[in-house]
Amino acid sequence: MIGRLIERIQKTGAPICVGLDPMLAYIPEHILERSYEEFGETLLGAADAIYHYNVEIVDATYDLVPAVKPQIAMYEQFGLPGLEAYKKTVDYCRGKGLLVIGDIKRGDIGSTSAAYAAGHIGTVRVGNKSFTTMFSNDFITVNPYMGTDGIKPFVDVCNSDDKGIFVLVKTSNPSSGDFQDKLVEGRPLYELVAEKVNEWGSWSMDGDYSNVGAVIGATYPQMSAILRRIMPAIYFLVPGYGAQGGTAEDLKHCFNKDGLGAIINSSRGIIAAYRQQQYSKFGAEHFADASRQAVLDMVADIRSVL
Amino acid sequence: MIGRLIERIQKTGAPICVGLDPMLAYIPEHILERSYEEFGETLLGAADAIYHYNVEIVDATYDLVPAVKPQIAMYEQFGLPGLEAYKKTVDYCRGKGLLVIGDIKRGDIGSTSAAYAAGHIGTVRVGNKSFTTMFSNDFITVNPYMGTDGIKPFVDVCNSDDKGIFVLVKTSNPSSGDFQDKLVEGRPLYELVAEKVNEWGSWSMDGDYSNVGAVIGATYPQMSAILRRIMPAIYFLVPGYGAQGGTAEDLKHCFNKDGLGAIINSSRGIIAAYRQQQYSKFGAEHFADASRQAVLDMVADIRSVL
Repeated sequence: MIGRLIERIQKTGAPICVGLDPMLAYIPEHILERSYEEFGETLLGAADAIYHYNVEIVDATYDLVPAVKPQIAMYEQFGLPGLEAYKKTVDYCRGKGLLVIGDIKRGDIGSTSAAYAAGHIGTVRVGNKSFTTMFSNDFITVNPYMGTDGIKPFVDVCNSDDKGIFVLVKTSNPSSGDFQDKLVEGRPLYELVAEKVNEWGSWSMDGDYSNVGAVIGATYPQMSAILRRIMPAIYFLVPGYGAQGGTAEDLKHCFNKDGLGAIINSSRGIIAAYRQQQYSKFGAEHFADASRQAVLDMVADIRSVL
Repeated sequence: MIGRLIERIQKTGAPICVGLDPMLAYIPEHILERSYEEFGETLLGAADAIYHYNVEIVDATYDLVPAVKPQIAMYEQFGLPGLEAYKKTVDYCRGKGLLVIGDIKRGDIGSTSAAYAAGHIGTVRVGNKSFTTMFSNDFITVNPYMGTDGIKPFVDVCNSDDKGIFVLVKTSNPSSGDFQDKLVEGRPLYELVAEKVNEWGSWSMDGDYSNVGAVIGATYPQMSAILRRIMPAIYFLVPGYGAQGGTAEDLKHCFNKDGLGAIINSSRGIIAAYRQQQYSKFGAEHFADASRQAVLDMVADIRSVL
């Protein structure tokens, strides 16, 4: 699967993905009004607005980028209607030829991780039938806190179903250091996690890179170079660009000399671009055009440091 | 909320909860057949079988225990129909007067954790309306890897909506030591997490105990005594009893001198009791009676060490 992502990154020339993390506050009034008119101010109404907001953004950007990263929490908070909007979003994006990185951050003991893997990137059996279930992501993000036996079921599905995962190593949030930066024999915990990711990654190679990637926050550039050296064959999924404070200059160490090795995510900076001064000329009616311009600007910005 | 859990533990005399983690392999043939007849060997068929299996177990045990702990992955793997069965299970259990601990192990950066908190234990706003959404758990489990700002939104909802959380500290799986046991300044990481849980717990006290609890695996008894001392006001949710290898003797250090401070979970050992030699006399037709007997035996076992 990582080979397919690399192919699309090379084809688009854009090592970036669009974070489909729709908050209701981002959605223009005219979309909200239309959905509330049809479904009322209900969970269904919210889910409908989210889906149509996503569709316009995807329509305006799918030719520019290799992948999208929907954050499932933004859908899950609206219950079953929200999760149906998640599923419809995933399916719509795949129909447009985009790869989908489900940002689900699941992780549990082995048998439970196996169920998450089956549901989100794999196959479940019911009697004599098999189903690739509702959430047919290409990649998902996973949490390493439980250790190897909590990750192995995901890697197994990477191999059986040609999928990929990104394991949290160093996250982009202000408190990420609470545990991730703690020194273990003089080295931060995230480096130990990185070494484990290397090991897990060796179980599912696809060309020069592994189907097992790592989440590395853009907000900590000094760490990227070290992590890049520790994990040469591991793709980095990098959140935190833009709204969370990461700049292109901060990102260059995430890439290998081949210009590969990282995909940079931006969520709010793209999907809510029309609300920024820089793109306000587009207006709320043309919010998706603002998103397209924000993608073009981000691609140019990142390519300037490669 | 922790006060309500303690009240029910005292009323039932049973510091245990039933883990509703239905694997299709556990469900008796006659239930599967009935559901497959109605819905086919489909996701709907699987979800229907899971729900009816749960209902019989809950009917046979709800008067004996204070709480249940459905593992959401076992439902989520069947997509939207599976999650609808999760919701129906949660609602059914609450209707029977049980408290529900949603074992969801979510956790992310602040804004994303806020969405998970709203969806699973809190309230979401849509326009001018508020919804306690589909997944109205009383407690949920959360993952601490992202640090304080990933946990705070959950604690905020504990306060605003009178709910509770259990934070993963030391998990019950064989690889839990990969990172959790690593020594930071001579002390295992899980002790540092425990100290943070203490701090987070102080933000949401409810009588002598906090609405913020900790997940402490029963499979590592030598650690329980230390963790009990570090976190005197923190309730422990203890998985790993029975099928995962933990015994009652292993558990006694999880409790405080007041006989409180811990709730022990058993999943497979109760819900699939009829498949064990010890309870085989009940037969698959009377699987729920086997579950009731397994609860009675577990309560007696645990009370013997208190």
